[in-house]
Amino acid sequence: MSPEGVPFTKGHGTGNDFIILSDLDGRLDVSESLVRALCHRRTGIGADGVLIVARTEGDPEVGPQADQAPYFMDYRNADGSPAEMCGNGARVFADHLVSTGLVERAAFSIATRGGSRHVRFLDDAQISVDMGAAQFLDRDDIRVRTAESPGDEHRAVGVLMPNPHAVAFVDDVRAAGALAQAPQVTPAAAYPDGANVEFVHRLDDHHIRMRVFERGVGETLSCGTGACAAAVASARLSGSSADSRPIRVDVPGGVVTVTWRADDSVELAGPTQVVARGIIDRDWWDAHV
Amino acid sequence: MSPEGVPFTKGHGTGNDFIILSDLDGRLDVSESLVRALCHRRTGIGADGVLIVARTEGDPEVGPQADQAPYFMDYRNADGSPAEMCGNGARVFADHLVSTGLVERAAFSIATRGGSRHVRFLDDAQISVDMGAAQFLDRDDIRVRTAESPGDEHRAVGVLMPNPHAVAFVDDVRAAGALAQAPQVTPAAAYPDGANVEFVHRLDDHHIRMRVFERGVGETLSCGTGACAAAVASARLSGSSADSRPIRVDVPGGVVTVTWRADDSVELAGPTQVVARGIIDRDWWDAHV
Repeated sequence: MSPEGVPFTKGHGTGNDFIILSDLDGRLDVSESLVRALCHRRTGIGADGVLIVARTEGDPEVGPQADQAPYFMDYRNADGSPAEMCGNGARVFADHLVSTGLVERAAFSIATRGGSRHVRFLDDAQISVDMGAAQFLDRDDIRVRTAESPGDEHRAVGVLMPNPHAVAFVDDVRAAGALAQAPQVTPAAAYPDGANVEFVHRLDDHHIRMRVFERGVGETLSCGTGACAAAVASARLSGSSADSRPIRVDVPGGVVTVTWRADDSVELAGPTQVVARGIIDRDWWDAHV
Repeated sequence: MSPEGVPFTKGHGTGNDFIILSDLDGRLDVSESLVRALCHRRTGIGADGVLIVARTEGDPEVGPQADQAPYFMDYRNADGSPAEMCGNGARVFADHLVSTGLVERAAFSIATRGGSRHVRFLDDAQISVDMGAAQFLDRDDIRVRTAESPGDEHRAVGVLMPNPHAVAFVDDVRAAGALAQAPQVTPAAAYPDGANVEFVHRLDDHHIRMRVFERGVGETLSCGTGACAAAVASARLSGSSADSRPIRVDVPGGVVTVTWRADDSVELAGPTQVVARGIIDRDWWDAHV
């Protein structure tokens, strides 16, 4: 920590926003309550989550990835809990590693709690990240109902990315209504830990529009795993599974692209944006640490 | 603008948060759309409003205040519109003037669109601002109903600060429910431009607890004019009008103190907090200017 405070960067990927902190010497103490304070949108800086840049080598949690990925994305949700992975967060994290000179290459891997993830800087200034394989739930009885129109039942496809998604196809994403409350997903047994819900309008086989209600959060401007789940569910419906052709996904916060490769891996690409860089006030930090 | 971007400070007063920009040479072009982009809580920095530090002298809008107040608080709401005054904003603005060395005194005036306002740094590290006189609406037929419990009618006191308030006294501020929607205030003729609504629990003659629904915004953590309106309405109810004794006002974002002076002026005091200082990315700024 400098005498003035703690350096930070704020950035976003299609409206998923993150506070990036640097902990290259492993001495930054970032508690759950500090993450909640940082992410508070009025008394803190405000963000969907915190991305801490740490060295992979020597970290007991992720150390074995060190030969592939020199930097560990220590991701925390806005509620303070650590998480395995965040697709848009990984893209913003990669942007930060390169723009601050920590990594010089246009393709490299980052370490996460969910394993090492490959990222690439594309020709159109977008950044892609390997999201692993999608797994479909083998059942056709999944239904989604909104709190506003509980009488309207939507059939949904279950996808694990590996977090759980229910993808409902609709003729118009506005049909989901205000989405002020969590949609009801049945049967409960299909989602023992709850589900993220996507309402998806298929414009064509390689272009969809979606809105997403994130479990425990609410409707968000973008969701990386949600875009991947929606895209693979749409591709399977059109019989174009894993054809390696990009699927454009319009989310409220912008446009991302999902590619389902022949090796079954799913790649998420999209823009990233740094908004500001600065110093978190030392008195504020000391009061919340 | 520096090559890197535009310097900013983010701070708050009891949860009302602001982005502070400096425009001492009068060359910063801050459009309505730029303010909206800055205040956007996911793709911008995020705030309830923007406070621009300008020199009073030579400003055609507020120049006549220059002999009393060297700096003009050019306040913009999060929707981009210019506003006359903001109580918590003025306190955060005064903190910034002193902490950056622009002003050295513990008491001074700042210029606003609503006229020059006196601020004071108090012994307990709080900052107070003169909010002018309260004006009561001379009618006893004002009623407030929440969207959740439209059958529960609350009598309310009308106060102009000078913005319009309806102050409803309740036995428990939780009685106002979720406040997800604007409460209904009648008769409409009492508030031609709508009303801010306070739900106030009187703990004693000099201590109240309140929640506020701000017109066009929603429930907020704090509202300076709302705290003043609630405090004077409570004081009149207890027969202790303008007794110059501080009234403690517990708001969701903290505690402010309102003093109704014998000269009829109302003073708002409370804590202020700088959260971070930094540079808004130049590419981001150029894309939104």
